[in-house]
Amino acid sequence: MSLGSFFYPKSAAVIGASNEKGSVGYTIMQNFLRGKMPKKAYPVNPKHAKIQGKRSYRSVGEIPGKVELAVIVVPAKIVPIVLGECAVKKVKAVIIISAGFSEVGEYGLAKEIEEIVGKNPGMRVMGPNCIGVLVPENGLDSTFFQGDRMCRPKAGNVSFISQSGALGAVLLDWASGQEFGLGKFISYGNAVDVDEADLLGYLAKDKKSKVIAMYMEGAKDGRKFFEYAKKVSKKTPIVMIKGGKAEETRKATMSHTGSLAGSSKVYDAVFEQSGIIQAGGLIELFALAKILENEPLPKGNRVQIITNGGGFGIVTADAVIGNGLKLAKMSAKSKARLKKGVPNTVTVGNPMDLVGDAGTKRYVNAVEAALKDKNVDMVVVVVLFNTPTLGDDIVGAMARLRKTARKPMVVLSIGSEFTRKKIKRMEEGGITTFHYPEIAAVSLKALADYAAFRKQS
Amino acid sequence: MSLGSFFYPKSAAVIGASNEKGSVGYTIMQNFLRGKMPKKAYPVNPKHAKIQGKRSYRSVGEIPGKVELAVIVVPAKIVPIVLGECAVKKVKAVIIISAGFSEVGEYGLAKEIEEIVGKNPGMRVMGPNCIGVLVPENGLDSTFFQGDRMCRPKAGNVSFISQSGALGAVLLDWASGQEFGLGKFISYGNAVDVDEADLLGYLAKDKKSKVIAMYMEGAKDGRKFFEYAKKVSKKTPIVMIKGGKAEETRKATMSHTGSLAGSSKVYDAVFEQSGIIQAGGLIELFALAKILENEPLPKGNRVQIITNGGGFGIVTADAVIGNGLKLAKMSAKSKARLKKGVPNTVTVGNPMDLVGDAGTKRYVNAVEAALKDKNVDMVVVVVLFNTPTLGDDIVGAMARLRKTARKPMVVLSIGSEFTRKKIKRMEEGGITTFHYPEIAAVSLKALADYAAFRKQS
Repeated sequence: MSLGSFFYPKSAAVIGASNEKGSVGYTIMQNFLRGKMPKKAYPVNPKHAKIQGKRSYRSVGEIPGKVELAVIVVPAKIVPIVLGECAVKKVKAVIIISAGFSEVGEYGLAKEIEEIVGKNPGMRVMGPNCIGVLVPENGLDSTFFQGDRMCRPKAGNVSFISQSGALGAVLLDWASGQEFGLGKFISYGNAVDVDEADLLGYLAKDKKSKVIAMYMEGAKDGRKFFEYAKKVSKKTPIVMIKGGKAEETRKATMSHTGSLAGSSKVYDAVFEQSGIIQAGGLIELFALAKILENEPLPKGNRVQIITNGGGFGIVTADAVIGNGLKLAKMSAKSKARLKKGVPNTVTVGNPMDLVGDAGTKRYVNAVEAALKDKNVDMVVVVVLFNTPTLGDDIVGAMARLRKTARKPMVVLSIGSEFTRKKIKRMEEGGITTFHYPEIAAVSLKALADYAAFRKQS
Repeated sequence: MSLGSFFYPKSAAVIGASNEKGSVGYTIMQNFLRGKMPKKAYPVNPKHAKIQGKRSYRSVGEIPGKVELAVIVVPAKIVPIVLGECAVKKVKAVIIISAGFSEVGEYGLAKEIEEIVGKNPGMRVMGPNCIGVLVPENGLDSTFFQGDRMCRPKAGNVSFISQSGALGAVLLDWASGQEFGLGKFISYGNAVDVDEADLLGYLAKDKKSKVIAMYMEGAKDGRKFFEYAKKVSKKTPIVMIKGGKAEETRKATMSHTGSLAGSSKVYDAVFEQSGIIQAGGLIELFALAKILENEPLPKGNRVQIITNGGGFGIVTADAVIGNGLKLAKMSAKSKARLKKGVPNTVTVGNPMDLVGDAGTKRYVNAVEAALKDKNVDMVVVVVLFNTPTLGDDIVGAMARLRKTARKPMVVLSIGSEFTRKKIKRMEEGGITTFHYPEIAAVSLKALADYAAFRKQS
């Protein structure tokens, strides 16, 4: 059974739709009436004749046409009943937002749901205890947070699977402020049916998912997860932040999503063998996703640093080496050519310090040479915009070089308003930018590691 | 000789002041005429009768009154001459902005300057090859970057010493966008006279410097630095980012500030013995400075996490444990009391998951209990503002709790506009906030380590 109906449903019902502003049933119904997708949206609520101006149905069975997706937001106790009705109606995809099942010890209710799922293999179920899906491309949105409290990211090519709804929502909100583009967002909660492996399998075939970012506490079926992950990551990089890594926090995951996280050592081994890239924290999760989405895979781990600030170059070199990468040694020929026409204050080495009075031309020469040099696998260009001599044309010049570059080439820059505007334009010009040397370095390392995994697999 | 004249000069001369907009000599003169400090500012430039509307003097000796501070921006070759004139004029403090000395192999010129310095102990010299000082409190500003390209932070209580001018400038610019307050900024460059140890000694007695953040490649006099650092950090925490940590980058520091960085192992030992707190990167440098400025020293390393998002709590707990801290175990009494009056979905543990429908009251009860509990040394409050039930009164409530708390209590929150505004108000209410669990955790660890150092010393 494909999972397509979760993301591209022509018709959808919101079971538990509401007229009460701010409520979950209100917000989802509102999202469904607003978006391009679903084309037809039906409110289901027996207590009202109309919901948000639309005719309300007493049950999903009463809806005249087909219902491809149903979103359930009724109290836990009623969920088995309405889920049964969905099965009768031949609904293809069901998202159970409602919580109050195995995560709080209501195993009886969880069991009832499992039985219905088992008897109806044609109906796929996501949740319970989740916030469902967000597809920026077509506006489909079952995440029930109000728009001002959780901004939605623009469409892009990184998809994000989160076992935790709250963590997912807050990261979506944060990402929207970072000009971050998203393919599909999925919060799958307690995974009564659709689990992380199913989602990996679906996203691997999805053109809008060039990279998969993931927050997981424990896989529902460890072996299945391992098999899927191994296959998927040969084509699509998977960046993981694993919750419940420490022995003490494993227990906490039980009451959170009802799944006991496996031991950290086992997961570390599974991740390594299946080519999954572990992020060291939330900052890294999206930094790694970004570089894996935008940059070509490097041939090796030799990094050339080019800078107009000596100290910044040194800190960057420390971070590069500290993360297990190597400083590239450009060929004598490249170096000799570069030394011509630059003042003697310039250091043609690594870091290559173009010094504070560097203009765009000096940068272009250096970056071009590094991109051409066979001893260089990746290029980091530190651009400190606050020096008086650096013209605005550096933005376009770097974007042009990026376009033809066949190696990873990232820009490292930090500052306030003046700099932020230029960084934004660089990003729009297709350049991967970072603010912090330590994050750039760890991202390049992940890229090189993933390239090595792809080469051997 | 005190260094006070570098920061609170009543009169100052800019030797090499200019009418050419955007030039170093123009910008510094402009800053000096604008700021509250210095009270009297004299341009020195023999080629012009007037500079920026003020009478220009042919030399510093021609200035009628006293000159407490001189800033030199003339070409390297002329520096020894004008420095000699400063000595005759009995100038107390001289900042040599000009570059082109030992960092590029011009040892002759460097030697000449050293000799003048040696013969005139009453005149203290900062630089050469530096950007000097910035004192937000009184507006004194010899950092020559144009205002739009480098914003100046507001006045605060963290002072920042940077051997590298460019790195210092770019971090000042970045910090200004972060609502970060600064005591004194000092870029001291090649350290012909005033070195990092002198600066530590001065700042230790400065009321506006509660914490010292520092970027250093190599100490000019290792033994002196060690002695000063050991003494200073018993009273004022020092957070360090060391440039040239890797063997390969040590060499690069030579051409940068003319000082060969010592071996990393030696520095690590020196830092540890002298209680200096090393930052793992640029993000950490200011995060550690912030927590050390704002929070009281904890009695131990047991952290209680309180959250309204399960996944975020788990990631935070992982980071806390991963950084060598411990999860606190609240007393049975506290727990029993907390369990009353909360729904059974709430986990009274660590992390304490108040779950998605938590309001301000539930937070207040939990935080109050943690602050009172003897088994808790530090409190992390995760506040995800995007849940519909969390009212705006959480901001004031947390600020009130912070005021009476005698333990470190930080708030962890992340999001876009809606959340950012609330975080800003929390910061204004005196709360230390973090966006990322990994940064909060590493900051709490630094705080606990520093507390342990202070206890044993």
